[in-house]
Amino acid sequence: MVIVMSPDADPSDIEAVVTLAEAAGCEAFVSRGFARTVIGVVGDLERLGPQRLRGMRGVSEVAQVSAPYKLVSAEHHPARSVVEVSGVPIGPDTFTLIAGPCAVETPEQTLHAARLAKTAGATLLRGGAYKPRTSPYTFQGLGEQGLKILADVRAETGLPIVTEVVDPRDVDLAAHYADMLQIGARNMQNFTLLHAVGETTRPVLLKRGMSATIEEWLLAAEHIAQRGNLNIVLCERGIRTFEKTTRNTLDISAVPVAHALSHLPVIVDPSHASGRRDLVVPLARAAIAAGADGLIIDIHPDPAYALCDGAQALTHQDIQQLAQAVADLARVMGRRIPEAVANELTPA
Amino acid sequence: MVIVMSPDADPSDIEAVVTLAEAAGCEAFVSRGFARTVIGVVGDLERLGPQRLRGMRGVSEVAQVSAPYKLVSAEHHPARSVVEVSGVPIGPDTFTLIAGPCAVETPEQTLHAARLAKTAGATLLRGGAYKPRTSPYTFQGLGEQGLKILADVRAETGLPIVTEVVDPRDVDLAAHYADMLQIGARNMQNFTLLHAVGETTRPVLLKRGMSATIEEWLLAAEHIAQRGNLNIVLCERGIRTFEKTTRNTLDISAVPVAHALSHLPVIVDPSHASGRRDLVVPLARAAIAAGADGLIIDIHPDPAYALCDGAQALTHQDIQQLAQAVADLARVMGRRIPEAVANELTPA
Amino acid sequence: MVIVMSPDADPSDIEAVVTLAEAAGCEAFVSRGFARTVIGVVGDLERLGPQRLRGMRGVSEVAQVSAPYKLVSAEHHPARSVVEVSGVPIGPDTFTLIAGPCAVETPEQTLHAARLAKTAGATLLRGGAYKPRTSPYTFQGLGEQGLKILADVRAETGLPIVTEVVDPRDVDLAAHYADMLQIGARNMQNFTLLHAVGETTRPVLLKRGMSATIEEWLLAAEHIAQRGNLNIVLCERGIRTFEKTTRNTLDISAVPVAHALSHLPVIVDPSHASGRRDLVVPLARAAIAAGADGLIIDIHPDPAYALCDGAQALTHQDIQQLAQAVADLARVMGRRIPEAVANELTPA
Amino acid sequence: MVIVMSPDADPSDIEAVVTLAEAAGCEAFVSRGFARTVIGVVGDLERLGPQRLRGMRGVSEVAQVSAPYKLVSAEHHPARSVVEVSGVPIGPDTFTLIAGPCAVETPEQTLHAARLAKTAGATLLRGGAYKPRTSPYTFQGLGEQGLKILADVRAETGLPIVTEVVDPRDVDLAAHYADMLQIGARNMQNFTLLHAVGETTRPVLLKRGMSATIEEWLLAAEHIAQRGNLNIVLCERGIRTFEKTTRNTLDISAVPVAHALSHLPVIVDPSHASGRRDLVVPLARAAIAAGADGLIIDIHPDPAYALCDGAQALTHQDIQQLAQAVADLARVMGRRIPEAVANELTPA
Repeated sequence: MVIVMSPDADPSDIEAVVTLAEAAGCEAFVSRGFARTVIGVVGDLERLGPQRLRGMRGVSEVAQVSAPYKLVSAEHHPARSVVEVSGVPIGPDTFTLIAGPCAVETPEQTLHAARLAKTAGATLLRGGAYKPRTSPYTFQGLGEQGLKILADVRAETGLPIVTEVVDPRDVDLAAHYADMLQIGARNMQNFTLLHAVGETTRPVLLKRGMSATIEEWLLAAEHIAQRGNLNIVLCERGIRTFEKTTRNTLDISAVPVAHALSHLPVIVDPSHASGRRDLVVPLARAAIAAGADGLIIDIHPDPAYALCDGAQALTHQDIQQLAQAVADLARVMGRRIPEAVANELTPA
Repeated sequence: MVIVMSPDADPSDIEAVVTLAEAAGCEAFVSRGFARTVIGVVGDLERLGPQRLRGMRGVSEVAQVSAPYKLVSAEHHPARSVVEVSGVPIGPDTFTLIAGPCAVETPEQTLHAARLAKTAGATLLRGGAYKPRTSPYTFQGLGEQGLKILADVRAETGLPIVTEVVDPRDVDLAAHYADMLQIGARNMQNFTLLHAVGETTRPVLLKRGMSATIEEWLLAAEHIAQRGNLNIVLCERGIRTFEKTTRNTLDISAVPVAHALSHLPVIVDPSHASGRRDLVVPLARAAIAAGADGLIIDIHPDPAYALCDGAQALTHQDIQQLAQAVADLARVMGRRIPEAVANELTPA
Repeated sequence: MVIVMSPDADPSDIEAVVTLAEAAGCEAFVSRGFARTVIGVVGDLERLGPQRLRGMRGVSEVAQVSAPYKLVSAEHHPARSVVEVSGVPIGPDTFTLIAGPCAVETPEQTLHAARLAKTAGATLLRGGAYKPRTSPYTFQGLGEQGLKILADVRAETGLPIVTEVVDPRDVDLAAHYADMLQIGARNMQNFTLLHAVGETTRPVLLKRGMSATIEEWLLAAEHIAQRGNLNIVLCERGIRTFEKTTRNTLDISAVPVAHALSHLPVIVDPSHASGRRDLVVPLARAAIAAGADGLIIDIHPDPAYALCDGAQALTHQDIQQLAQAVADLARVMGRRIPEAVANELTPA
Repeated sequence: MVIVMSPDADPSDIEAVVTLAEAAGCEAFVSRGFARTVIGVVGDLERLGPQRLRGMRGVSEVAQVSAPYKLVSAEHHPARSVVEVSGVPIGPDTFTLIAGPCAVETPEQTLHAARLAKTAGATLLRGGAYKPRTSPYTFQGLGEQGLKILADVRAETGLPIVTEVVDPRDVDLAAHYADMLQIGARNMQNFTLLHAVGETTRPVLLKRGMSATIEEWLLAAEHIAQRGNLNIVLCERGIRTFEKTTRNTLDISAVPVAHALSHLPVIVDPSHASGRRDLVVPLARAAIAAGADGLIIDIHPDPAYALCDGAQALTHQDIQQLAQAVADLARVMGRRIPEAVANELTPA
């Protein structure tokens, strides 16, 4: 059972629900989102009595959820969620562009990329300090030094930071520097890492595993939510198939499917999905048109020299094209984009 | 080697190229498209001498093609091709909607579906008379009777007909009634069937096999082209993956990838890709935004009673939504849609 | 409902069952196997009355079948089937090796390959006269000339012939020359071809499609059986996955799964599954140990010059190793192999 | 470049090689296996000079390795490796059975399962204390309490313990109790976890990720080896495909392919590959016949009440069948099994 608290519920209202559930021998999981708190209850729900809960102060909805994921389920959920990252909303009314280098390499490269990101209309900066790499002989990221560079670039540009964590021992450190924590595709079922980010108050960007079903992806989100953190943004980044012209196969259907099953925002990563610069803009367009709430894009001031995934990074000449595509299509889809961006572009 | 003839080349120009190639001991394959003819030559190209060919009357381009498919390759090809189906163009400047019932069941159902298709902005009518069905105990189609119903409905509505063939022995009969012949996903590598449609003058809609790579798909197109028929439209209809919420996984990247590799038009079938009515419009939007040249959509006047694939068929309430999506997004993508359709819709 | 006739039922017994079923408004499909006939009945089974059928002469079993395939289902089926190919049994007590060249190229190559096949212990000769090839620019087979070569080699070596058909128009011709007709992976859902072989009396080797589920494979077999021919041998030949070191991924589980679901024999093709000569013997061993009823193996007297799939063909030095593996493992699995073969090999 | 030290090389020999490599500006990675140490060197190999290394004391082989994985590569490697787990060898001459419950639930269940494992011929006990579970609402394992139960059962039965770790923070604790550490499929690219087990001296069982290519699997092994630990056993456990009758698709080819590419032992997990009790023995047989060095099998004294994966656990009636299959086929494959086991079984 899921109890959705109203936006104006106060901590004592939440406490009262938890106390009642536990008194009935149930287990209660409080998950806090940007605008509202959701409480999942498992155990003898008959004995607990949903009717009693409906009358309690601060309780907005009480719903039985048949899906295996509860807190993140869309079943009986009144509205799609907005996740806010240091003031930048990701949700149903807006369209949010996250851009930046795959890996933080130097202060200059990162700052340059951040400025390019801004010209593309990005309002969040991505950049990896901890890089999970298939081979142990390739660049593994700068670690804390990379986080510091990101923080400096944020100070310079005003862009909040999204960065990946790969080890539960680094989560506190990363949460100290970053505005949003990313769980990469390879770690989508690294449950202790999910629990660690679930215990922070930072919003989480949860990439879909490369062979994860949508149900498994939502259950991974549930692992985070169950630990208290409902500020989760789902990110489709391509699944593994037999097709060889693209690095992965972007599962564009995952956008409307995840929207139908969950109240969480869903964004798309066309850079990692395709692995090819020439496909990023067409796939970005497709993602917006399919209803995505945002995009995350690799950009690099000098892709030929990138230490990681240069073949998919957009650079100067492509970025205006991306910005225009976002502006044109987001408008058709009825979504707001930042005014500063809109003003610089030609109308569709 | 591929020799692209200019649109105004006459039969004797083509004949002269073939004669020269054969005199040099090469094999020549003449493939006729809507606006131009392409001649593929294999053998001792050194001896043939491309220079000599370039000077011949009616020769527009002579290109070495490194891809394994030649006639359908985009390499050195001057422009994207337009395929015209009884006056309806499918190509880079337009956006073409094909709609209709999965299977022809009765004259009434087919006529009703055709009228719904027109209100959706469709300019071509799809409908199956020969249905390849996984189980031998389900409806297998009406055969020639179905073709006759389609022809009657064309007479009534003016919509040219697209219909599937599954047996080389039926190709002439189907070509007699229909305006465009469809090769279904299960028959993408039914090479004798490909050869049979390659020997007709009807345009061909070639669906991608459910586990075919894009290269195999283009080689299947080459099998058709090599027999003389270059009027081929590629159709992405979803590939088979592990994901279970959709019947197939729409490989949206296939649109820009096939456009990069081939000069043929590419359309998308969101109905068979997803198998779910609620996903058809979002995926149709994504397809347009990714650059597709058209869509093929299942519609049915009464999906609950459809003999085939009712769960994915759009009906009255969804069709206006589809028409609006096509109009809005085709405009953003710089593509013309039929004026009659455009006039009835609200501007984006 | 499925009615299994006893081995000694005569045509009038079968006729009586069909007459009764049709009189009750049902449709009856008579499918003739090597040792017994099975009749599938669909329609108003209540009205038909299974009890009445059980008492009829020649009726051995009457079973309701819940699987979507009926005639080939193992449900309530008394015993696994044996398919006999011109005197060579394929079934639960024996182990049958089919070997030969992927494509018939010349009389000499075919005869040489057939002799190699015999030394490997093969009792059936495979060889392709009609080759479905991904590219139209590669060798497509010799057609009828290839069938004649195979017939000559049979006369010389005594090995019955297995050969692929790809076009319903060629089925009668192929059935005239060959002892067993093969349906290739690409044609597993070429239903008109399935129907054509279902109307012959030749045993059929049905390869699994490269992205076919086991259920779809059995439904393809049902398409053949429903037209009257129950002499079907299933062949697992690898499915398409993301793994790149092998041409396909041999789905070894398909052997016990298909045995659990169907009464038909199941063999394995490790040559096409792997595409690599060095993997053929290990995979052949795995297939025998998993319970396969036989193997089909590509061999070639001179693989470096093969016109088709040379990289996977076994030749002189590998063949003794294969023969030994078959002998050792078939014995452990409690299966008979031809005595002549057994005598030449060292005991395990 | 890889330098294989001879079995009798002493620490000063290894030190000398490292010193020389570092003096030449290269980076050296020392990886210690059961019988020998391997040193990987990256950097300016020209300057280092392989010739000079070949003459050094304790150096057995110096090889350039073209594969992206170096320390685990079979290239120029003199012989297959043996990994020894508290006296139990896993390698080319033996066949090793690992069995036990998926999850440790109680002392009684674990002891009972261990005794069943012994009757099956197992010489290592598997059992999970940390369970990575798709849903947060299912049993997550007993943690340290589970490790203690395993240690008690080892004391009682003499079976060394294999247990999974899922968090780098638990590796030292698990290594304190267990004889071998398992990395599960979901964590195959959890690189910080790989590094953590690479820094222990415990042998590691590395399961293949459910959508990992064989190359990625070997690179994951390289991540472990590079941190110093070459005692790695690879475990194929099924990959994710479209087929629905089995939980995963056992990639049986992975056994001979991994053996061709790497010197590490390879075992197979038919329980997780199939998820079905009835398929475990046929797949176990196939694995032995394909050349696997061992098996890991789920068993449970009372599968109907198992807290995890009961549907795939073997129990009393199946275990004798497994033991017989192992004995019969291991013998045919020329592998030793423990004498005590062999004595109790009937000869093939």
